Amino acid sequence: MSEERLPVAPADLRIFFEPRNVAVVGASANPTKWGYYIFHNAAAGGFRGRLFPVNRSGGTLFGHPVLRTVEDLPQGEVDLAVVVVPPDQVPGCVEGLADRGVRAVYVVTGGYSETGAAGAARERELAALATRRGLLLAGPNGQGLLSNPVGLSPQMAFARPPRGGLSMITQSGNIGATLMHYAHVGGVGFCRLISVGNSALLGVEEFLAFLAEDEGTTAVALYVEGVRDGRRFIDALRAAALRKPVVLLKGGRTPGGAAAALSHTGALAGNADLFGRLVEQLGAVVVPSLDRLFDVAAAFASTAPVAGPRVGVVTVGGGWGVVAADAIQEEGLELPDLPASVVAELDAVLPDRWSRRNPVDLAGDIGPGAMHRCVQAVVECGAYDAVVHLGGGLVGFAGGLMRESPLYPDQGLDLVVEEAARRDQRLGEALARLAGRPSCPLLFASDAAASPGAAQNPGLAALRARGAPVYPSPERAVRALAALVRRARAQAVSDEAPPRAAAPRAIAAAAARIAAAAAAGRDRLGELEAAELLGACGVPFAAHRAADDPAAAVAAAHSLGYPVVLKGAGGALAHKSDRGLVLLGLRDEAAVRAGAARLFGEAGVERVVVAAQVAGRRELLLGWVRDETFGSAGLVGFGGVLTEAVRDMAFVLLPVSVPRLRAALERLRCRALFGSFRGEAPADLAMLARILNGLWELGEVAPALLAADLNPVVLGPDGRATAVDALLTLRPAAAGGS
Amino acid sequence: MSEERLPVAPADLRIFFEPRNVAVVGASANPTKWGYYIFHNAAAGGFRGRLFPVNRSGGTLFGHPVLRTVEDLPQGEVDLAVVVVPPDQVPGCVEGLADRGVRAVYVVTGGYSETGAAGAARERELAALATRRGLLLAGPNGQGLLSNPVGLSPQMAFARPPRGGLSMITQSGNIGATLMHYAHVGGVGFCRLISVGNSALLGVEEFLAFLAEDEGTTAVALYVEGVRDGRRFIDALRAAALRKPVVLLKGGRTPGGAAAALSHTGALAGNADLFGRLVEQLGAVVVPSLDRLFDVAAAFASTAPVAGPRVGVVTVGGGWGVVAADAIQEEGLELPDLPASVVAELDAVLPDRWSRRNPVDLAGDIGPGAMHRCVQAVVECGAYDAVVHLGGGLVGFAGGLMRESPLYPDQGLDLVVEEAARRDQRLGEALARLAGRPSCPLLFASDAAASPGAAQNPGLAALRARGAPVYPSPERAVRALAALVRRARAQAVSDEAPPRAAAPRAIAAAAARIAAAAAAGRDRLGELEAAELLGACGVPFAAHRAADDPAAAVAAAHSLGYPVVLKGAGGALAHKSDRGLVLLGLRDEAAVRAGAARLFGEAGVERVVVAAQVAGRRELLLGWVRDETFGSAGLVGFGGVLTEAVRDMAFVLLPVSVPRLRAALERLRCRALFGSFRGEAPADLAMLARILNGLWELGEVAPALLAADLNPVVLGPDGRATAVDALLTLRPAAAGGS
Repeated sequence: MSEERLPVAPADLRIFFEPRNVAVVGASANPTKWGYYIFHNAAAGGFRGRLFPVNRSGGTLFGHPVLRTVEDLPQGEVDLAVVVVPPDQVPGCVEGLADRGVRAVYVVTGGYSETGAAGAARERELAALATRRGLLLAGPNGQGLLSNPVGLSPQMAFARPPRGGLSMITQSGNIGATLMHYAHVGGVGFCRLISVGNSALLGVEEFLAFLAEDEGTTAVALYVEGVRDGRRFIDALRAAALRKPVVLLKGGRTPGGAAAALSHTGALAGNADLFGRLVEQLGAVVVPSLDRLFDVAAAFASTAPVAGPRVGVVTVGGGWGVVAADAIQEEGLELPDLPASVVAELDAVLPDRWSRRNPVDLAGDIGPGAMHRCVQAVVECGAYDAVVHLGGGLVGFAGGLMRESPLYPDQGLDLVVEEAARRDQRLGEALARLAGRPSCPLLFASDAAASPGAAQNPGLAALRARGAPVYPSPERAVRALAALVRRARAQAVSDEAPPRAAAPRAIAAAAARIAAAAAAGRDRLGELEAAELLGACGVPFAAHRAADDPAAAVAAAHSLGYPVVLKGAGGALAHKSDRGLVLLGLRDEAAVRAGAARLFGEAGVERVVVAAQVAGRRELLLGWVRDETFGSAGLVGFGGVLTEAVRDMAFVLLPVSVPRLRAALERLRCRALFGSFRGEAPADLAMLARILNGLWELGEVAPALLAADLNPVVLGPDGRATAVDALLTLRPAAAGGS
Repeated sequence: MSEERLPVAPADLRIFFEPRNVAVVGASANPTKWGYYIFHNAAAGGFRGRLFPVNRSGGTLFGHPVLRTVEDLPQGEVDLAVVVVPPDQVPGCVEGLADRGVRAVYVVTGGYSETGAAGAARERELAALATRRGLLLAGPNGQGLLSNPVGLSPQMAFARPPRGGLSMITQSGNIGATLMHYAHVGGVGFCRLISVGNSALLGVEEFLAFLAEDEGTTAVALYVEGVRDGRRFIDALRAAALRKPVVLLKGGRTPGGAAAALSHTGALAGNADLFGRLVEQLGAVVVPSLDRLFDVAAAFASTAPVAGPRVGVVTVGGGWGVVAADAIQEEGLELPDLPASVVAELDAVLPDRWSRRNPVDLAGDIGPGAMHRCVQAVVECGAYDAVVHLGGGLVGFAGGLMRESPLYPDQGLDLVVEEAARRDQRLGEALARLAGRPSCPLLFASDAAASPGAAQNPGLAALRARGAPVYPSPERAVRALAALVRRARAQAVSDEAPPRAAAPRAIAAAAARIAAAAAAGRDRLGELEAAELLGACGVPFAAHRAADDPAAAVAAAHSLGYPVVLKGAGGALAHKSDRGLVLLGLRDEAAVRAGAARLFGEAGVERVVVAAQVAGRRELLLGWVRDETFGSAGLVGFGGVLTEAVRDMAFVLLPVSVPRLRAALERLRCRALFGSFRGEAPADLAMLARILNGLWELGEVAPALLAADLNPVVLGPDGRATAVDALLTLRPAAAGGS
């Protein structure tokens, strides 16, 4: 549909969030209709502009006079219309809105592409109509939007999160509602939310570009199930993540269609979280669940950037400190010791029972003054990049439970409850004053945040008034903190030009051969052809020759020099080493002659490849795979005969620079292979990047190429890479294939 | 301290949870004292027995007359005393309690072993005193206990979870409080809780044995930081897990002291979650966080066993279904298609917009009757082992939010709110009727459960009245469900005798040699000695000979047959292959002579080992490591030169049977290596189990043995194992070592 889209500047979309006046077409007095709830929510938020309910029934709705038709709207005064009429009435309604000078239309109505082919046709017509009339169109089939700075909430969801900096774009209305519910309960401030529905015209890509520039938005949460236009999405996400933190949950991480069963790369890409891995390389933090989406979004929206991984913990309970420490180490963060000067300082303030180490375990309530001094000392000592405080608001929480006691107010319980509230509030205020120091952010977790009375808790209220989220468990706070550190690390990756190697002419020639092979119905190119073709594109292969009989094999070995490797080759051969068709370390003529004779006796062997034996104990897989969203992706990982058994791969967005390749390799379990490894030199990352970028360049001009596998690629003792086998997977022109 | 313990039968501990009458010594009218809160909580719970506050101040406390001294307690009528007096008063108090016929004492007072050596001595004296007087002693330094069936709650924590089947033993008072808070908020029913404090006499082991037999307890949650007596813990946990579901969170999963830096096994064991892995083999489910501890405990306490991994999902919102489906697949569960008969059945009931697949997406509220029929059809169709329902209670939740609207009660909002509550309650009751069917349990998740009004939500209340937990996100419900499936899988592992191989005499002889080597100050035994010693214990080694000069090497090769491997050997050599001291595939005399000459020229080489070259492409590590808690543990995983780079190990509790070894290997990423692998036969698991059990037998009688590494162990094409290198790590008798 991209050809139907209007050119939209990000600032144009502000009209959805800060319109002068708003019409709700299909607003209804009937509580069985969505139009009842959407208009209620629009009217309940305190929007300062005028609201125009439109419904042929007339009358008034929540105090607003109902217009009978869009033609009754004042000319040129309504910027945004939210449409919730039956599908057959939508086109007429949109025409009428355009006539009245409305600039943006949000269509809640469903029954479009989500219902099948007829609906998809209706959706295309709707998009074409909007384009023709110069209207900005969001939806259809969305749940609505929220713009907290102006008190506008024309949507089906009821949650009313407080005002703040978090904005969200969601491809699922109910996932958006969940985030607002969590934020409402957790006191996390929202700025904008838009449920993009089917994105007939405007989608994640466009609204993301708007939020990147929106000054009210300090962090962006995305829920994405699919991307319409990978290139726009990539550009928008990269640009947004440069300006503010972005957290993304991908819905639908199920095994997808692999490129081809024969291709390692295709199979591995299909089964892994390719999307998530590549999105992280654009600067967003990818999370695995709704809870984490909320937790990270809350941290991003409220907390200053965290410079490094050093975490201090202050806890009023020992067990919480222990589980926090576990989570800190499991997330790859650090827990440095408390400086001796801080121990001495705190000894003067704290009851004797405190732990004198990090986590600082206070073993109980110590009062607001001592807590302030304690946390201040830890925050300001310079040993930590962030501090996690555990147990805030618990005094008030206990007070709240005491108020519910059947014995209340006996034995002074009423006074105890009052004192607890006072004390808790002072404690919360003391902590809030320390939170948000840019040099060392403070995060909070407390059982109190999970309590029914959380909204009334005086300690929590004091923290939340400063915008500090309070997580309901130590681990959730730590995992949110880890996302802050991940973002800092991602931003610290320096950018430089991706290395290029291949000459354009060689790439073009290789692409032409691939096109010809695909046109001939072939679905793969095996070792000899792939090596020749990729070698011309700059991929370093082991020196090799093909031989048609044992004598030719001996001659080839002689010219290459011993030791050599012999491999049986033929159009239908895969997993050669499993079949005993790879003979390693042949050291003389007799061994080559005997080996070649054996191979020519095996079924399927048409030729024998004689190759120089490559030194090196590290075997990698380098690969490239076409991807619908991202165009393509590179793979680097553990290779050789154990590739599938070990299954340890990193995906990289191409073309890749050396620093970005290095960062991607950090996620591999086998990352040690790429460093100084048992006496061998570190991998030549520029060389690996050049190879991957060469595959990418080829893929860009060879549309029939689906996947390329280089496996194994041997890392030599000098760290340089040599490919010793290759396979190209093609999309054959004819359905039948080879 | 185990020598000081009384023999305790599990049923004896019932006295802590169902005492006739209870004294609280140190109960106080002063709200700055713990004794105030503990007595309040004891008095507020509705306990039917008599409560005796004891404090020299006298007077009354929450309506109970205060006794001035324990001597005023009625003789022989008080079963349990909770003690919260200063440490110096505890011994006199305990004597006095024993004099009055008290049978069990729970000491809240701190200042014992948690404070250092002097406190530890005090704790030993306290334990000895209790033992001498025949008292059951829990604590000291615990936060208290809860026994919900009798309304008894003498503890510092205020949360009052509803009554139910979940019981907890915790080594951290505040972690226990957190679980009770979560349960209070989440409406999950508790039976017993005990905070075991320092466990001077009674600890996790003993209370676990009690809960295993306690008929009120349907599931057990454990928070454990350390185990005093591994053998008792293992026995108690295995016995408990056989009878009811047990979920465990281990606090302190930080890298521990590895056996020795030179030992793969020691280093890998020290850095991994050895404890968790072994505990799972006893039948408990191990969780990584507090949230998960609660989520799984709630499922275990309320939900019937789940027979298999097939999950159906019914959702009122599409996005929730998508993230649930992702979590289902990521947890290794299955999402089978909806049977055609169910599609037809539901087509007759549901609005046209429904998804017609699993997840069953209803795309909105469908009313109680249709929902009941829909869920019933899915639950009863036989295609699923469990069903997850998403979005229950949301109608009432929205109603609750509408009631808070600034526009309430305009435009019929009051009627809408009432109708929502009615509708929601009917929906909740309909779902509750379907929950808990043993053939196909039903789990619930809903935003509504995360809301401030959750306790008043009519739909949730109806579900909770039936004991069904409602998770606040789809993923949390799915992960709890996955634990139910894990438990079912663990229970399905058939038990059989662990295979044994070695003759006791050979084991004893090997142990004697190890003792002698350790006595001589040696900290390791290298390849030749280890192979000889372990070979006698039944570990299959490649045939090999030692040679002291090149001529002897040639003679050895001749007798072994070509090809052979040459390895340099010497007391100080490790990582031989990195140093070029391993020469593979030598095929003739000349090669052996030249290779041996080269090796003898290398520094540190004292002898050369000539070994038959072993065929097979799969290289494993088999290992054994001594462990404080479990005595020892076995390791199986990816071996060879890439061991550390790949770091893929399974820990097994020894001795191990074949089914249990197979189950442990299922957790390896490289598990494919143990099956039919690229033309080679599956691993001979009985052989691997025999090797591991032989190491275990040796370790049982060789206390100086710290770790044993067999790496690599080559799996041949026939699946049989041959060790080709070995290292034994010893605890040398003298500190200096070799």
